[in-house]
Amino acid sequence: MQCIDIERKLGIFSDHWSPRIIANANGQDIKLAKFSGAFDWHAHDDADEMFLVIKGGFTMEFRDRSVALQEGQMIVVPRGIEHRPVADQECAVLLCEPAGLLNTGDGPESDRTTSGEWI
Amino acid sequence: MQCIDIERKLGIFSDHWSPRIIANANGQDIKLAKFSGAFDWHAHDDADEMFLVIKGGFTMEFRDRSVALQEGQMIVVPRGIEHRPVADQECAVLLCEPAGLLNTGDGPESDRTTSGEWI
Repeated sequence: MQCIDIERKLGIFSDHWSPRIIANANGQDIKLAKFSGAFDWHAHDDADEMFLVIKGGFTMEFRDRSVALQEGQMIVVPRGIEHRPVADQECAVLLCEPAGLLNTGDGPESDRTTSGEWI
Repeated sequence: MQCIDIERKLGIFSDHWSPRIIANANGQDIKLAKFSGAFDWHAHDDADEMFLVIKGGFTMEFRDRSVALQEGQMIVVPRGIEHRPVADQECAVLLCEPAGLLNTGDGPESDRTTSGEWI
């Protein structure tokens, strides 16, 4: 029951595509991540994923369309839908998704695969 | 799979203590609410509640302490813990909580009781 300061948490890490966990509520982890460049195409068969842009912007690519998101905008990617976030410039994003979810989805793992560490 | 603009959603309503639903992910509703003044003391026996300040600030009062929150700060109120938000000035808050949750908790309902409407 303490104040969680997003700006302060973002100052703790600098690497990209490696979400950090800042809270949990009802089995959902609240994570912060920094995006830069293109991530891997992937899907989560059993989990929806919420992305809220904290700073900057990125594009969520789907196989048949793209959705551009700026600060203060969010999207929910439904379970089972292939997607990949792409950021032309570094941006900061808040995610809400089931605890333990791997960022690279249900396919093969890569050197970027993580379920996040608490900060 | 569309862009949800928080600022635009906040422009749709003006009443206080009446959360609106803007998204759902994994059974959790993402809501926006405007706070002003003091809300009712309440608890949710089976639900954690996440509050993220979008604009302004408010204080989350507990029976034994208070936590002040400003824009860009968040708190998770664990299930079963009595709390009431108090805002000296109007503020805007993003909430994440199980779909159907009543804002006044598990106690008696009041004229402010709602689980929120989609906008």
